Amino acid sequence: MTLCGYNSLWLLKMSTFVLGFGLVLFMFRSVYLHEEFSLHPVLPHPNPVLPRSNPAVQMPKLLPEERLRSLFSYDGIWLFPKNQCHCETKGQGYNFEGAYGQKDLPAVKARRQAEFAHFQRREGLPRPPPLLAPPNLPFGYPVHGVEVMPLHTVPIPGLQFDGPSAPNYKVTLTASLGTLNTLADLPDSVVRGRGQKQLTISTSDRKLLNFVLQHVTYTSTVYQHHRVDVVSLMSKSSIAKFPVTIRHPVIPKLYDPGPERKLRDLVTIATKTFLRPHKLMTMLRSVREYYPDLTVIVADDSKEPLKINDSHVEYYSMPFGKGWFAGRNLAISQVTTKYVLWVDDDFLFTNKTKIERLVDVLEKTELDVVGGSVLGNVFQFKLLLEQGENGDCIHRRSGSFQPLDGFPSCVVTSGVVNFFLAHTERLLRVGFDPRLQRVAHSEFFIDGLGSLFVGSCPDVIIGHQAHSPEVDLELAALEKTYSKYRANTNAQIQFKLALHYFKNHLQCST
Amino acid sequence: MTLCGYNSLWLLKMSTFVLGFGLVLFMFRSVYLHEEFSLHPVLPHPNPVLPRSNPAVQMPKLLPEERLRSLFSYDGIWLFPKNQCHCETKGQGYNFEGAYGQKDLPAVKARRQAEFAHFQRREGLPRPPPLLAPPNLPFGYPVHGVEVMPLHTVPIPGLQFDGPSAPNYKVTLTASLGTLNTLADLPDSVVRGRGQKQLTISTSDRKLLNFVLQHVTYTSTVYQHHRVDVVSLMSKSSIAKFPVTIRHPVIPKLYDPGPERKLRDLVTIATKTFLRPHKLMTMLRSVREYYPDLTVIVADDSKEPLKINDSHVEYYSMPFGKGWFAGRNLAISQVTTKYVLWVDDDFLFTNKTKIERLVDVLEKTELDVVGGSVLGNVFQFKLLLEQGENGDCIHRRSGSFQPLDGFPSCVVTSGVVNFFLAHTERLLRVGFDPRLQRVAHSEFFIDGLGSLFVGSCPDVIIGHQAHSPEVDLELAALEKTYSKYRANTNAQIQFKLALHYFKNHLQCST
Repeated sequence: MTLCGYNSLWLLKMSTFVLGFGLVLFMFRSVYLHEEFSLHPVLPHPNPVLPRSNPAVQMPKLLPEERLRSLFSYDGIWLFPKNQCHCETKGQGYNFEGAYGQKDLPAVKARRQAEFAHFQRREGLPRPPPLLAPPNLPFGYPVHGVEVMPLHTVPIPGLQFDGPSAPNYKVTLTASLGTLNTLADLPDSVVRGRGQKQLTISTSDRKLLNFVLQHVTYTSTVYQHHRVDVVSLMSKSSIAKFPVTIRHPVIPKLYDPGPERKLRDLVTIATKTFLRPHKLMTMLRSVREYYPDLTVIVADDSKEPLKINDSHVEYYSMPFGKGWFAGRNLAISQVTTKYVLWVDDDFLFTNKTKIERLVDVLEKTELDVVGGSVLGNVFQFKLLLEQGENGDCIHRRSGSFQPLDGFPSCVVTSGVVNFFLAHTERLLRVGFDPRLQRVAHSEFFIDGLGSLFVGSCPDVIIGHQAHSPEVDLELAALEKTYSKYRANTNAQIQFKLALHYFKNHLQCST
Repeated sequence: MTLCGYNSLWLLKMSTFVLGFGLVLFMFRSVYLHEEFSLHPVLPHPNPVLPRSNPAVQMPKLLPEERLRSLFSYDGIWLFPKNQCHCETKGQGYNFEGAYGQKDLPAVKARRQAEFAHFQRREGLPRPPPLLAPPNLPFGYPVHGVEVMPLHTVPIPGLQFDGPSAPNYKVTLTASLGTLNTLADLPDSVVRGRGQKQLTISTSDRKLLNFVLQHVTYTSTVYQHHRVDVVSLMSKSSIAKFPVTIRHPVIPKLYDPGPERKLRDLVTIATKTFLRPHKLMTMLRSVREYYPDLTVIVADDSKEPLKINDSHVEYYSMPFGKGWFAGRNLAISQVTTKYVLWVDDDFLFTNKTKIERLVDVLEKTELDVVGGSVLGNVFQFKLLLEQGENGDCIHRRSGSFQPLDGFPSCVVTSGVVNFFLAHTERLLRVGFDPRLQRVAHSEFFIDGLGSLFVGSCPDVIIGHQAHSPEVDLELAALEKTYSKYRANTNAQIQFKLALHYFKNHLQCST
């Protein structure tokens, strides 16, 4: 039989071929996407569900990549779903591997991997895959939030059995990093395994079973930090699993503001100076115009120590040229008040430099650091991190994330100017890396990622001493020497890129 | 009718009374225990299940207190169940409130409460109560472990519906700190609310429903640190709730050991000195016998600065008498290697002082700090914290928790001697509080609770310069001045107790 000149058998073969080819294409695409997904560190292994109906029926598919890009991007950076990050470095970005010589790179990579593995192990990373609950479990149990301090005991809330009736019930609880018990006062015929890793409840009385379950306790038996024990609850063939987090709370380090909340007991000013004693003294005089009794900590790595006649100045001498961030770290390490105000040695306090305003912001929000503005310049920038196997990708964009709750003229961001008030304890936890000896700024905020919550309030303004050529010959010579140290040489740039590669486990930046 | 001389009515009244009284007694006891439990901060409100049978049948009860004390104690300290902590301070312990004058105490308490509330708010404490899953939910979902970085997107694994068959299915997902979507490519008639806080799936095809659920995504929309969003999954009257943790990972701060792993690139020695230049120099000479090129950082708050002829010594001058812990904090703030070895200025290196051994321990375990022994003295002590509303109780006991995995001659403990190797980054996160100017030791380990994982290896031994009277008149005068500063005066003791009360939010110690 023929149809429009085509043999029906041929038609059949053709249709089957086309359909089959379409199926293969579709399978290939699903497999391709599946491959991408299964490489994603966070994703478990999803299997696209293919309906077992007539293959001629349209099978459900996933959104195409262009759609995903438009849905899951931030600031033009496509974030998800991807299993690797990379940087569009045309002109503006860096690939950090490039900071190392070709010969050295393989050895550096190996060392970096070893150090990273050590770090991961100590941080309890990577975290285990999520705990999944299958449907229709006959149990009630705590899904999230049970925490216990090492060696302590807690009750496990929410345990109950609501399965089908039976002449006898047998329920078993199992833990691995601790032991189980129950506060219910019942004989061993009902509860076996008290104080062991496995507790078994056997009874014909359903209400008794639930009474025991209601009072189950978990005791941590090993002294360790940040572990998660998975406890299982089993009856016949149903198993529920839930997490118990073993964690030691971080002890508070509070500062007493004193009965009068004097600014002197709340805030210390900190600064670092090098070969600019005249600018430092000008800055100090400007502080004293508005804040006569605030403690000022000065870290100095110049050749000769200074004598500063000010009973509220604490002066520290360092080895010559030890460095910019070493000096910053030294200065903040000496602060004994709740807050520390960082200023550069060439700033100038004015009547707009309201420290009280910055204190108010930190007292009322969850920020760790709040920056002001230097002569109108806020220098806010956002940092967005993408994780990747060969190191993370960091994207820097100017501006802010969102306004600050409660302070509409302020914003939340990642980096600010060198004029900021910070929680001393939080600042010390991050610190300034003494390996950064010369020009450095954003490195501090990158080191602070994940630790510091940063904001910016442009209405608190500090002045800046202008770069005017010195008349005094000695000072002019000093300034010339200083400028040499301030030049951001190529060697220094390479050093900082290499540091990002190794220290921060970064791949590239844009 | 009478029975043995008793009126049957009287008997009936009597039995009812006795039974009733017994019931009341039992109720009172349950209520009493219930009261105790419901005051416990961690416990939800358990209602003892009373069987609805004949009141003459025995009702289930909870274990008596003596039994609880024997089950849930550590080192003789009863830990659970309690809603308050207290210290048996006969002779050996302290109640920290006592360090304040009676007049000042109410104001101090109020200030401490305000500072603590500020701290809690910024740490995201107290955590919300545990999320409880009721039994027989027709859903599969992730119980624990879904994490997302702020502003990023993750897939939600494990979502599925396995309820009774129906002609039509409608499932709703709701989030509050982020938005929901699905990678499934389907029209709005099936999936509504893409990119919103509520996503609704409506279909008659059960497999399609599960395909959509399998590919649900969560996008964090606010830039914030450490929050937990509770996402709910609902169909008809069944609701499942599960947590999505919004957390920014802490960026690594790794140190490159260099291609040859020279000890000089791995370890820096740090020390603090005050009015003991002769002892310092003796200690330095002993270092150089065994380790000629390790960097030694010296923080000095003596009257006159020293000139030390050693190209690997970094010397820092501080304001006179600034203090012991201020100097310690300064010294460690200058370290540029992965590890820092703390030594006191009057120690003596010997052929048993094997730094390499301590490095090996830190490289292979999860310890942050490992102490050695000073002339055979290990000074190990455990710190056990109990939480309480009026401040925590801290219990100090000599000894260790358990042996160290992989190093059977070493142990895990809370505090060690002043001879230890530490991860620089971890040590800096805790730091030495510069408010502690004179005698102090355990305060550092208390500040480290929850942050530092500490161990001790007694086989690594350092010597100690004996206290022998100086022949040299100048040195003798110096030592006399020094001893005055080393006296642990009553005023200083009171200061330190007050500091524990306020800074660490402690109530008492034993």
